[in-house]
Amino acid sequence: MGNSIGSQFIVTSFGESHGRCLGVVVDGCPAGLPIGIDEIQSELDRRKPQSSAGGTGRREEDRVEVLSGILNGASTGAPICMLAWNKDADSGAYQEIVNTPRPGHADYTALLKYGKYNDFRGGGRFSGRITAGFVMAGAIARKLLALSGIEIVAHTVQIGDIKASPHPSDITRKKVDKSAVRCADTAAAGKMMKLIAEVQKQADSIGGIVEVLAFNVPGGLGEPVFDTLEGELSKAFFAIPAVRGVEFGAGFAAAAMQGSQHNDLFSLSGKKLVTLTNNAGGISGGLSNGMPIVARIVFKPTASIGKIQRTVDLKTGKKVDLSVKGRHDSCIVPRAVPVVEDMAAVVLCDFALRAGIIGRIIK
Amino acid sequence: MGNSIGSQFIVTSFGESHGRCLGVVVDGCPAGLPIGIDEIQSELDRRKPQSSAGGTGRREEDRVEVLSGILNGASTGAPICMLAWNKDADSGAYQEIVNTPRPGHADYTALLKYGKYNDFRGGGRFSGRITAGFVMAGAIARKLLALSGIEIVAHTVQIGDIKASPHPSDITRKKVDKSAVRCADTAAAGKMMKLIAEVQKQADSIGGIVEVLAFNVPGGLGEPVFDTLEGELSKAFFAIPAVRGVEFGAGFAAAAMQGSQHNDLFSLSGKKLVTLTNNAGGISGGLSNGMPIVARIVFKPTASIGKIQRTVDLKTGKKVDLSVKGRHDSCIVPRAVPVVEDMAAVVLCDFALRAGIIGRIIK
Amino acid sequence: MGNSIGSQFIVTSFGESHGRCLGVVVDGCPAGLPIGIDEIQSELDRRKPQSSAGGTGRREEDRVEVLSGILNGASTGAPICMLAWNKDADSGAYQEIVNTPRPGHADYTALLKYGKYNDFRGGGRFSGRITAGFVMAGAIARKLLALSGIEIVAHTVQIGDIKASPHPSDITRKKVDKSAVRCADTAAAGKMMKLIAEVQKQADSIGGIVEVLAFNVPGGLGEPVFDTLEGELSKAFFAIPAVRGVEFGAGFAAAAMQGSQHNDLFSLSGKKLVTLTNNAGGISGGLSNGMPIVARIVFKPTASIGKIQRTVDLKTGKKVDLSVKGRHDSCIVPRAVPVVEDMAAVVLCDFALRAGIIGRIIK
Amino acid sequence: MGNSIGSQFIVTSFGESHGRCLGVVVDGCPAGLPIGIDEIQSELDRRKPQSSAGGTGRREEDRVEVLSGILNGASTGAPICMLAWNKDADSGAYQEIVNTPRPGHADYTALLKYGKYNDFRGGGRFSGRITAGFVMAGAIARKLLALSGIEIVAHTVQIGDIKASPHPSDITRKKVDKSAVRCADTAAAGKMMKLIAEVQKQADSIGGIVEVLAFNVPGGLGEPVFDTLEGELSKAFFAIPAVRGVEFGAGFAAAAMQGSQHNDLFSLSGKKLVTLTNNAGGISGGLSNGMPIVARIVFKPTASIGKIQRTVDLKTGKKVDLSVKGRHDSCIVPRAVPVVEDMAAVVLCDFALRAGIIGRIIK
Repeated sequence: MGNSIGSQFIVTSFGESHGRCLGVVVDGCPAGLPIGIDEIQSELDRRKPQSSAGGTGRREEDRVEVLSGILNGASTGAPICMLAWNKDADSGAYQEIVNTPRPGHADYTALLKYGKYNDFRGGGRFSGRITAGFVMAGAIARKLLALSGIEIVAHTVQIGDIKASPHPSDITRKKVDKSAVRCADTAAAGKMMKLIAEVQKQADSIGGIVEVLAFNVPGGLGEPVFDTLEGELSKAFFAIPAVRGVEFGAGFAAAAMQGSQHNDLFSLSGKKLVTLTNNAGGISGGLSNGMPIVARIVFKPTASIGKIQRTVDLKTGKKVDLSVKGRHDSCIVPRAVPVVEDMAAVVLCDFALRAGIIGRIIK
Repeated sequence: MGNSIGSQFIVTSFGESHGRCLGVVVDGCPAGLPIGIDEIQSELDRRKPQSSAGGTGRREEDRVEVLSGILNGASTGAPICMLAWNKDADSGAYQEIVNTPRPGHADYTALLKYGKYNDFRGGGRFSGRITAGFVMAGAIARKLLALSGIEIVAHTVQIGDIKASPHPSDITRKKVDKSAVRCADTAAAGKMMKLIAEVQKQADSIGGIVEVLAFNVPGGLGEPVFDTLEGELSKAFFAIPAVRGVEFGAGFAAAAMQGSQHNDLFSLSGKKLVTLTNNAGGISGGLSNGMPIVARIVFKPTASIGKIQRTVDLKTGKKVDLSVKGRHDSCIVPRAVPVVEDMAAVVLCDFALRAGIIGRIIK
Repeated sequence: MGNSIGSQFIVTSFGESHGRCLGVVVDGCPAGLPIGIDEIQSELDRRKPQSSAGGTGRREEDRVEVLSGILNGASTGAPICMLAWNKDADSGAYQEIVNTPRPGHADYTALLKYGKYNDFRGGGRFSGRITAGFVMAGAIARKLLALSGIEIVAHTVQIGDIKASPHPSDITRKKVDKSAVRCADTAAAGKMMKLIAEVQKQADSIGGIVEVLAFNVPGGLGEPVFDTLEGELSKAFFAIPAVRGVEFGAGFAAAAMQGSQHNDLFSLSGKKLVTLTNNAGGISGGLSNGMPIVARIVFKPTASIGKIQRTVDLKTGKKVDLSVKGRHDSCIVPRAVPVVEDMAAVVLCDFALRAGIIGRIIK
Repeated sequence: MGNSIGSQFIVTSFGESHGRCLGVVVDGCPAGLPIGIDEIQSELDRRKPQSSAGGTGRREEDRVEVLSGILNGASTGAPICMLAWNKDADSGAYQEIVNTPRPGHADYTALLKYGKYNDFRGGGRFSGRITAGFVMAGAIARKLLALSGIEIVAHTVQIGDIKASPHPSDITRKKVDKSAVRCADTAAAGKMMKLIAEVQKQADSIGGIVEVLAFNVPGGLGEPVFDTLEGELSKAFFAIPAVRGVEFGAGFAAAAMQGSQHNDLFSLSGKKLVTLTNNAGGISGGLSNGMPIVARIVFKPTASIGKIQRTVDLKTGKKVDLSVKGRHDSCIVPRAVPVVEDMAAVVLCDFALRAGIIGRIIK
């Protein structure tokens, strides 16, 4: 259990890294949403590894198939099952995982939870490949949100110790996608590329931070006290492997701020009430306030590294030196950008449906 | 909706800051848990304001009453309804909120969501007082977890720019409670007290960070891919007013780390597999790994400040200068410490029940 | 767990028969619903025992109190907690239940589930008194449904072997409430009264059937394939103690019908598509079709009877003769009528909110 | 939404009658359950139409494929996605449904809910073919329940006005499956066959009743007050197309019974407490009592009949005579028997997991 998320727009994940497929069932998409398979595919393509930016260099050519819920180019109101078949993967390199858990990986916790029955091949359910299903669901959610003018864009704001300071007007999906590291600050992007290359040479990996913004979100979305916007977004982000923290607006910097600094003052922009700053990240009391929603998500460095690491052989109890074989992303952050966008879309879509903003039939 | 949390240990919140009461229904507590009303009361007492540490100076003497589910000092298996009656509160000062929303408060988003029908008095559902119900639920959860030896302790690690570096052995509930700011580092605690006093003099407020640790959590708790330990804990923490971010283990610092630094190496401690470091914060793949769970939660500075702030009169559209009257905490962090503990307890209890670690009848 | 029902209109039940109170939390009522405490009270009054119709003769003067969620005569959008305090009850007669379970009662299954910790006093959570909370929630639901013109009326159609054949125009709430047995067929009502009196004399009890109709339900309510109208209504009805079966439209009689008899033919009534018969009971494919929804719910005879019955002493293993003391309803059916109405209202309200028919703020 | 059922054993349905496939995702199956694809296939085979018993005569050769969650013949703990690909179906005959809704079918309510976007081909989501997914889930559930010795068997007890009175010892899966109408009373079975043949000749259809029994269910299963055994079983049964009513134990007959008749007297059978009769159908207070669970489910006659029926052309408003083309079951009851068994298994499995009777890893 635990493989479904959402209340009115319910996403159920299935599939394993080296199993037959990776897929998702989306239940709750209103009837009448025009959606082409190419739109879902293009979302899937965005999370492909790019070797120039720390990606694996593996050829992952996931092709989405729609098994149900879409007919004649529109959603029918029925559950939408989508999947991508896995190509035959070489699972040989993963045989030893069961007994010698890889540092930083979920091999050991999976063993604790599911015993030897866990599908350890390629990380199974704990692999980043699981997010292939997430972005399929996100493609549907984005289309639905677009009907209400809601747009979501994510971008890389930090890799290692290199921080980006993009001009707000550069933070568009188009511009972000032009950068191999998905960073809207060209100068920083260059440094990030260099850093990743260095790290890669060391057979090591590096972490980073993704920022996601949602524009034109109507005020009042969220269902406090427990189903807050921040809470549900965080829960969705933490489903992405390697996420270690989430903050909104001023985030952790708010610790050192005074109320007179942090409070966003109200003002009128035409007839619309706005705030002069956005330390709240567009959310107050768990509810959207009409300003852009701003969240930052930190990704730890990829656990799979070629560098030799110490672990333990669970059978013998002896210390073992381990080097994770195979090609692995040395920096997952650029590939995580679309996944973050899509999980944000899934959550906002759920709240929009709960609030009745999107109808049950789209005319 | 949105006022319930949990799957097997379900907490439903009700009540308003200046309404008749603040309360909670806990559904899913197994029958046979010995629990005294004094134990619930003492949890409620811990979140009382302490004037010496930036608290309001208001006398909040919440007395818990148990309305159902506990008989002869033990849980019956039925829903446990608990509440504290509100003393007659002066709601006069809140009359103007509807038209002139207070910066940093949820007045405006509440208006967007619930219209003029919202209970604005004392912040209504968006007041920190709502957490009185949270700690009642937490008192039950803590008792249940204690049966399995699980202990949770939270402490203040930052207020303003003052950071604490307590000795690990000082991070016990007893020692933390001795400090007015609930900081286990005596030197830092002193500075924090001073800072809060200064800020208070300025009729301003200050933010901070709470760290929470859970010890003896058995491995394998969590229900990935969506109901991860991090995701559910975060969702619960974001229900506490003023939380702006949550991180686990190395957290945001992981952005600048390399895999070889961040990966926690495995080792044997007797027959138990442990990790030599705990950058994972006790969680891998959304599942507990047997090491202490470590999370940090950032609180923004209290929104209610005496300092004059600019806002807008929604009726006239004119700019208005506002000074929030009444006594307010200038730093909420020390009072948030037990609330964080209790929300962590609620979530861990839910996972323990989902995993079948706690039985349906306690013998 | 299991004490909440609903997806968008969520009802959480708490309290015990001889505990401090019986109550309910309703989460999901949109803000702005005008609701007076007298309207909730009058719903509560309807389920009072009437000695003339097989009721207990006990004086049950439940007074509802609203603890949260309603302010100045309107819902605020926050959870509505309502309860009725129990008068001091004599629980002495229930002491022996734990060891000598009463035939037909839930004493034994409660023991299996909750052990000796169960609150056996007055039947605890398994008493019909639990429905006091149900009707409080129903009062809110009915008001919400009335906004869309939806009306629900239930009536007694069978007690013992006496069946009613009321004229359809007599099936109104007003007329039904005039009958002590809540039967809209005056002749049958008289016979029912007589039968109940006879049974009462024998210190025995008798079963019966309640029919519930919902008018003006818009077409398309329901969320198949699992959250069907029939399924959710049934689940709600089975929460009422003593219910043994639920059928819709032609119900069990459909077993002996041919398709050409059972299929309801379509026709136009003005511009509205109607069916010439209503064997479907207003539901097709789990969805409302615009015709009146018709369900029948069977109640077993009350388990508590004065007649001597054989049971077993669980401690000694010996056979014991038992006569249930205290005053008990010899026919629960008339009192169940409003409860059935209210549970139907709760379910329909939930579906109306899921379908977005009722908005989040009522203007 | 509404396409998932269960709390710990969660079944999500997808696929359409004439879409690409019919499938299901089962989330919550503990790791380590040995399960062969042949076992799932054999469950699927049981619901195949049998021309000799009113079945369609269509060749429905559904082959199950497991896409995830099972590895090396055992469940991994991950979601199990299973499906059967649809053969190319001739959807031509269904073109006219949108404008001239078939009496007794869900065409019209589907139109109300999903508009013209609904997949009307072959009944889409409202076809009996949807239950192909249900039985796949049921196959898993049955295997899990078998670990605790729980066995479920269903059988036909009525078709038209012919009622069966099988000897209790004949109600075994094996014997039931030998009968083309799945009736354990050989004499009645013969008459049922004849009746179905007659009805078929008339291009008509006929209803019936299925009884389901669950043996060796441990006492105390169920989560009252809302998640009762009866409520959750009913909800699951009503997801099967054509179900119009559900009753437990004495069911509707209880209306005419007195308490002294209906109350099941307790007795000791060895050290086990049993009841001398089973009017309660194994359930008291929403909880299992250790006696066999007994439910009866009524199926209306199949809506698709060759006989000419009156309907309305929604475009022109004119009356139209309709004869449903294609081969259709003239009695669905025999094919419904395994589906009823499987839905009962799904629900009992969920309760067993909620009660912690089945562990998270099967050793």
